[in-house]
Amino acid sequence: MKELIKLVDEYLDKYLPISYPEDIFKAMKYTLSLPGKRLRPVMCLETARMLGGDMMKAMPTACAIEMLHVQSLIHDDLPCMDNDDFRRGKPSNHKVFGEANAVLAGDALLTLAPQTIIEKSAGLTSEQLVQIIHEYTKFAGAYGLIAGQVVDIESEGGKYIKSPEETLDFIHLNKTAVLFRLAVRCGAIIANASKDTAEEMDEFAKNFGLAFQIYDDIMDETSTFEEMGKTIGKDKNSGKLTYVSLYGLEEAKQKFNSMLKNCYAIIDKYDTKVIKEILNKIKSRISGV
Amino acid sequence: MKELIKLVDEYLDKYLPISYPEDIFKAMKYTLSLPGKRLRPVMCLETARMLGGDMMKAMPTACAIEMLHVQSLIHDDLPCMDNDDFRRGKPSNHKVFGEANAVLAGDALLTLAPQTIIEKSAGLTSEQLVQIIHEYTKFAGAYGLIAGQVVDIESEGGKYIKSPEETLDFIHLNKTAVLFRLAVRCGAIIANASKDTAEEMDEFAKNFGLAFQIYDDIMDETSTFEEMGKTIGKDKNSGKLTYVSLYGLEEAKQKFNSMLKNCYAIIDKYDTKVIKEILNKIKSRISGV
Repeated sequence: MKELIKLVDEYLDKYLPISYPEDIFKAMKYTLSLPGKRLRPVMCLETARMLGGDMMKAMPTACAIEMLHVQSLIHDDLPCMDNDDFRRGKPSNHKVFGEANAVLAGDALLTLAPQTIIEKSAGLTSEQLVQIIHEYTKFAGAYGLIAGQVVDIESEGGKYIKSPEETLDFIHLNKTAVLFRLAVRCGAIIANASKDTAEEMDEFAKNFGLAFQIYDDIMDETSTFEEMGKTIGKDKNSGKLTYVSLYGLEEAKQKFNSMLKNCYAIIDKYDTKVIKEILNKIKSRISGV
Repeated sequence: MKELIKLVDEYLDKYLPISYPEDIFKAMKYTLSLPGKRLRPVMCLETARMLGGDMMKAMPTACAIEMLHVQSLIHDDLPCMDNDDFRRGKPSNHKVFGEANAVLAGDALLTLAPQTIIEKSAGLTSEQLVQIIHEYTKFAGAYGLIAGQVVDIESEGGKYIKSPEETLDFIHLNKTAVLFRLAVRCGAIIANASKDTAEEMDEFAKNFGLAFQIYDDIMDETSTFEEMGKTIGKDKNSGKLTYVSLYGLEEAKQKFNSMLKNCYAIIDKYDTKVIKEILNKIKSRISGV
């Protein structure tokens, strides 16, 4: 796991050389290079590998998904959105580079991601590239990540789909699960996996995404700024809809366990230390709460 | 020309049905459907046609380039950027939908553009799709449109590349010419044009892009809000670097005429009423100043 994170960090650095005009590249690199768990790229690489593909062929796509993730963090932190001053333990992008550059750095990452997939993916066919970029656009845009963000903002104003429960699942299937889905689906494309296998991994990613969000909500209630690297207790203090605020801590933990069980049921079939390590890690942290 | 604009408007509408969550799709559609000259998509369609390709095969790409253009307008108008309250004669996106939705609507258009190219371009090969999206990413991101925007913002703070002249050309080769280059280059790919032809059209687009920017700068000095649909005299009042402020009206007109001459030299070889009509129109307006 540590080796994979290191590898992802190296390639993220390599795929984004500082060019002219330097300020925008520095702003892009700043948030992209903050130490992170790199869960999404690692899931992509590991899915490609465990399904019989060449892991290194997945590196550009894995890094592109992290670029997309970081883009969403930069824009989410803006004063007009979540107005968050910290990210991964450091001042957020607009606090360092100003709002205009933070908007543009996000835009630039959103475009650099597919550019990296096209330019760096030696060994993939044009058909595979088109499939991967198609997945990217479906999950990154108004039918995916942005739908989740919009409904999240609206829910803060008390506007729900039908019920708060349905709204919360919609938000996080789109805001959180969507990037894990993108990661494993692209991994499956790169490994030339069967449609059934790809669908099963997609099911894994939906369960993992929601479990990971519940984990995050529980941690937001129970951990510290030092542990999480971002403002803690903010959701609670702002009365935000979360799995803990809606279901209470115990029921949220039950939901987490049930989704994690679904994840293991799929992943146990495969030879993947890495993904099991990720599941074990968040499981043990939640058991300790 | 009018028929082409109408066709582009129809397809822009068709490619962006209102889906859930409605607010984001409405925000995207709002600025996208404001009446515009649709110069970039028209150039793309007409280049594909006049180089022997099927114009309708270029429609998804043409509309994608307009989506990218509109995305850049929405983000440019934000309070943290140019802070402009009007666009195409109407309140700008964030004035109607709020800043958060304007940021997200821009992000969503930036992703919908390549999604539209992939989903709607029946009859293009995977190789063509990859080439087109590669061009899109190169010109839309930190190596293109965004580089222009960043240097533009920096120049307002008095930070130049070497000289104001070089800075101004850099800004508008990237901010303005880049989308015309993207339009004709994609048109050439769709028509399976030779590399030489594509390069020549690229040269046309660079000249046209700068000429068009000089036209815009001159109009900003001499026309009215009603004519242009946006705040007029703003550049002059803010002391912004423009072709008119740097060279004076007469020399700016000379530059415009010289670049337009280069455009005619290339375009006169082709059977294209549409592009000649565009050139004639801006030429006659500048002669009248």
